Amino acid sequence: MQLGIIGLGRMGGNIARRLMLKGHETVVYDRNTDFVATLSKEGATGVADLPALVAGLTAPRAVWVMLPAGAPTEDTITELGKLLQPGDVIIDGGNTYYKDDIRRGQELAQKGLHYIDVGTSGGVWGLERGYCMMIGGDAEVVRRLDPLFDALAPGLGNIPRTRDRSPTADDRAERGYIHAGPPGSGHFVKMIHNGIEYGMMQAFAEGFDILKTKNADSLPADQRFDLNLGDIAEVWRRGSVVSSWLLDLTADALATDPKLDNYSGAVADSGEGRWTIEAAIEQAVPVPVLSSSLFARFRSRQQSTYGDKLLSAMRFGFGGHVETPKK
Amino acid sequence: MQLGIIGLGRMGGNIARRLMLKGHETVVYDRNTDFVATLSKEGATGVADLPALVAGLTAPRAVWVMLPAGAPTEDTITELGKLLQPGDVIIDGGNTYYKDDIRRGQELAQKGLHYIDVGTSGGVWGLERGYCMMIGGDAEVVRRLDPLFDALAPGLGNIPRTRDRSPTADDRAERGYIHAGPPGSGHFVKMIHNGIEYGMMQAFAEGFDILKTKNADSLPADQRFDLNLGDIAEVWRRGSVVSSWLLDLTADALATDPKLDNYSGAVADSGEGRWTIEAAIEQAVPVPVLSSSLFARFRSRQQSTYGDKLLSAMRFGFGGHVETPKK
Amino acid sequence: MQLGIIGLGRMGGNIARRLMLKGHETVVYDRNTDFVATLSKEGATGVADLPALVAGLTAPRAVWVMLPAGAPTEDTITELGKLLQPGDVIIDGGNTYYKDDIRRGQELAQKGLHYIDVGTSGGVWGLERGYCMMIGGDAEVVRRLDPLFDALAPGLGNIPRTRDRSPTADDRAERGYIHAGPPGSGHFVKMIHNGIEYGMMQAFAEGFDILKTKNADSLPADQRFDLNLGDIAEVWRRGSVVSSWLLDLTADALATDPKLDNYSGAVADSGEGRWTIEAAIEQAVPVPVLSSSLFARFRSRQQSTYGDKLLSAMRFGFGGHVETPKK
Amino acid sequence: MQLGIIGLGRMGGNIARRLMLKGHETVVYDRNTDFVATLSKEGATGVADLPALVAGLTAPRAVWVMLPAGAPTEDTITELGKLLQPGDVIIDGGNTYYKDDIRRGQELAQKGLHYIDVGTSGGVWGLERGYCMMIGGDAEVVRRLDPLFDALAPGLGNIPRTRDRSPTADDRAERGYIHAGPPGSGHFVKMIHNGIEYGMMQAFAEGFDILKTKNADSLPADQRFDLNLGDIAEVWRRGSVVSSWLLDLTADALATDPKLDNYSGAVADSGEGRWTIEAAIEQAVPVPVLSSSLFARFRSRQQSTYGDKLLSAMRFGFGGHVETPKK
Repeated sequence: MQLGIIGLGRMGGNIARRLMLKGHETVVYDRNTDFVATLSKEGATGVADLPALVAGLTAPRAVWVMLPAGAPTEDTITELGKLLQPGDVIIDGGNTYYKDDIRRGQELAQKGLHYIDVGTSGGVWGLERGYCMMIGGDAEVVRRLDPLFDALAPGLGNIPRTRDRSPTADDRAERGYIHAGPPGSGHFVKMIHNGIEYGMMQAFAEGFDILKTKNADSLPADQRFDLNLGDIAEVWRRGSVVSSWLLDLTADALATDPKLDNYSGAVADSGEGRWTIEAAIEQAVPVPVLSSSLFARFRSRQQSTYGDKLLSAMRFGFGGHVETPKK
Repeated sequence: MQLGIIGLGRMGGNIARRLMLKGHETVVYDRNTDFVATLSKEGATGVADLPALVAGLTAPRAVWVMLPAGAPTEDTITELGKLLQPGDVIIDGGNTYYKDDIRRGQELAQKGLHYIDVGTSGGVWGLERGYCMMIGGDAEVVRRLDPLFDALAPGLGNIPRTRDRSPTADDRAERGYIHAGPPGSGHFVKMIHNGIEYGMMQAFAEGFDILKTKNADSLPADQRFDLNLGDIAEVWRRGSVVSSWLLDLTADALATDPKLDNYSGAVADSGEGRWTIEAAIEQAVPVPVLSSSLFARFRSRQQSTYGDKLLSAMRFGFGGHVETPKK
Repeated sequence: MQLGIIGLGRMGGNIARRLMLKGHETVVYDRNTDFVATLSKEGATGVADLPALVAGLTAPRAVWVMLPAGAPTEDTITELGKLLQPGDVIIDGGNTYYKDDIRRGQELAQKGLHYIDVGTSGGVWGLERGYCMMIGGDAEVVRRLDPLFDALAPGLGNIPRTRDRSPTADDRAERGYIHAGPPGSGHFVKMIHNGIEYGMMQAFAEGFDILKTKNADSLPADQRFDLNLGDIAEVWRRGSVVSSWLLDLTADALATDPKLDNYSGAVADSGEGRWTIEAAIEQAVPVPVLSSSLFARFRSRQQSTYGDKLLSAMRFGFGGHVETPKK
Repeated sequence: MQLGIIGLGRMGGNIARRLMLKGHETVVYDRNTDFVATLSKEGATGVADLPALVAGLTAPRAVWVMLPAGAPTEDTITELGKLLQPGDVIIDGGNTYYKDDIRRGQELAQKGLHYIDVGTSGGVWGLERGYCMMIGGDAEVVRRLDPLFDALAPGLGNIPRTRDRSPTADDRAERGYIHAGPPGSGHFVKMIHNGIEYGMMQAFAEGFDILKTKNADSLPADQRFDLNLGDIAEVWRRGSVVSSWLLDLTADALATDPKLDNYSGAVADSGEGRWTIEAAIEQAVPVPVLSSSLFARFRSRQQSTYGDKLLSAMRFGFGGHVETPKK
């Protein structure tokens, strides 16, 4: 099957590669001509602009946009909307806010164009392992693109089957992608995925922080242990309740750099983590863990907050307390 | 009435002063002989050691220990237990853990000694305004000491009476002290007081942090305000739902130092905040706000946590993300 | 001075009354003709519709809209925008989202109309005590309306002056209102006020919950106290760090109904609490306390969550644990 | 090798079985004679009391106590301490508080007895998959028992090796158990494991709660999706960042009972989750996620809290708000 791909960064480039490996044809574009040249050598049809990309595809066309969320994606889709013909499909594989998907789906539908949003998990490992995809859009259009999604997804692999899963359930979930619902639902599910990811990461972060500080010189000697954090991560990978891919990555990191000195600890966050809290608030769902995880990241990027200083000021006010400087 | 006082720091010294102002007699001791000399000039009977203090009091004696919680208080009370006679009273006015009070009450009762724990709020303002006291111990002994507590407490003042408060209710609460229950209950109530205090302080800290960052250069100009935080604290003091002593102190601090540059923001915490969470956990009470307030203080004292670094390490592991340094 | 008032519910009606008490003139309208009739008897000029209200005012007019946020306010302001003349002022005293204020301010400015947003705190007590007001809009227009705001505000009263407050600072803050900045800033500051209010309330709620459960039969007898919660609230009102209006209200409630049996505990929340978290997230401010307070309210309105059931399901899955029913 | 086992419930019984499967000899005791009889039929040597158990083992003996933490374990170990001889080993495989281990290790050392604490993860799956074990005690004694631990552990299995793990690192971690350090350290590490487990579980619980309520009738129809939660859990098992054993269990549960109607949602908690927070507080580690997870369980077991009612009472006090009943 044929797919146009716009945006050949780490994600878009590897999506093209995985599709070609599975025998699909790609027509590719990126502002950066080096990226286009590289993929052309690997078998893709490189083009110089969007009109050429549209011209290089056979109707009904499918174009996968894999660009940073916000203006880059929005502008590209607007331009594609002018170039494509009724029946063509625009796929947004980036990290778009799901309400933008809903709006775009409605706008493009008025031109007879289909809009598909794909929440894509897999990061740097996707080329090799496949991408886990959550897809929003018309059922029929998703069905039309099934061969592409199947090629990108990890497939059944050697993961044990879920006990009691109904034989009539949609088998796409077991192969690594789902049709979640109408436009926006794919990115909605991916957004929640990332929210959960933040929470799980923070659970590990807090737990290992307690293990680490149990070794600390600041504790009285008779209350201190000398725990090997790398061994702990390793042993939990086998038969424990917390075994998970994030634990595997933790074991990797601790094997290489047990003190984690290579990492700044100023932790970035992206839209999904924030929008998850927003969705929870819209739906009146209590999410103390997901929000705490986001706030821990906000806090990690600051030396001290104005709020902390106000606490010091109040303590001075009522008790004459003068804080000692930060260690 | 006569009271022995051990520990003449900021709290103990002012307690002696306030009692003398109200016509009571004090016999005072501190390791620091300067403190003793100063109070002697102000009318107290200064003594050189604990035996002299006991000798200087008429039975049944009452001795107020106003020392740092832990070893200083524990050792002093142990020694007093050997010096005093049945019927005498030891009062611990410090910040003792309530379970230590319960144990001490039982130990001293075996010698015929009474033990009274007094949770004391008032800080640097107590001399002038009086101390709010929460008292644990035998009802009869508290009654015997009523004149002292009454002198130390703020009194009715010009605070509006609580609507519907029963005319048969214990009027000591309105005068600024209560008999909470058996030994330990005074410090228990004071402990919860401090837990609530942490939560209220953190609520203000977070709110003013949002106000402050709404002024920040890092926001796009058209989303920025230029809010006067001092005026905001001031106006909330009048008729708003958040009016409180902590808000008064906030207004004070912001009037003097609007940017709070004088404060490190490395916020100390004391036993009460921690024990409050422990009590909540023992009683299975969900306390997200009180615990978050404590954790914000823990976090405020660190540049970055090992947990934050682990988050960075995991993000690098699954997405190749490299964090930018802290601002 | 003359003011048109639309919306004569608890807030709007009392605003009219307080203004008339201070010698101002009001022209009033409400869909509910009973409300209009009542206020007319008290001295207001009642009118039957918006055109009549506009006709009853002398240019430059000032019209205070005191309606539920959202459609009722939006529709009324849209209609007023058509009826009023350049130079007239629309005041929104409700609980509007500040981004709506910014938009409205821009739309009305194009017609030469002024827009003022007033965050109003005071609730059922405002008539007697005055309203604490946070005001957004053009400085000159706020100045023009100063007599009205001054009449509505609590005034200096007998609240102690803030130490070190600059003699050149805007004295309106001390009289109970501020000009916070351009349109939207009034409601922004009020929004944060309510966010802080949630946090303070939750701090008290958690603290009193620990006190209450320390009395509970479910604890072993030797770990139980018999604390008088009403006395505790009362004593904290005198000289303690947590003294505050919310504590006064707590003491009121506990004096009347110590077990709080009259209250459902299904706690409502309004837009401000939610928008505060949204603003914090936009500005990357960690707000664990303010968010926890909101989530506690969400949780309070549910019997059990789907998330709780999923926890039970996972526990059954890995450990065969069967949960006992809720008590 | 030979092992005495006391306590033949789900955990102890299967530990005996797994050891026998791997060729080890067991001498077993339980108060419940049926349990003893059953295991005897499976090849164990059943005994009628502790003296018989001790008599049935060859010195130096090893006895594994697998009983509920607290009194049952404490009393049994006390009795064993009287029956065993210098050089013998007591193993506590239960969920003991690590400070109790430290104390016991010291007490038993005075009699020449060794004490080993084993934090054991594996639950109902351990017989088949093996147990992940975190072990505290003398290095030499752990080495002596290596054959037993190796038999109980999951072994290398087909889990991918951790990249960069040092070839000189202790290979026991890869086989599924570690020697964490001195007595207490095994249960300390297991305690943190459970703390992290609570956090990860709550992250999933909150995320799926948002997905579930996005389907809810209470949302406006145009903001609602119709998400298939079972398919979402299933697809995340393949290539996503949140893939984990807990997600596998979630997929299992949702395949069987998508609405989770079989679960009460009144979620129990055990000592480890509580002690984790206590340890964090002792070490001044901020743990908002681990604590929120514990508090969500506390909250899940109550209809409403006294704190919630106090919020309602305050809202009535300042605003006249009357709460609607819980849905």
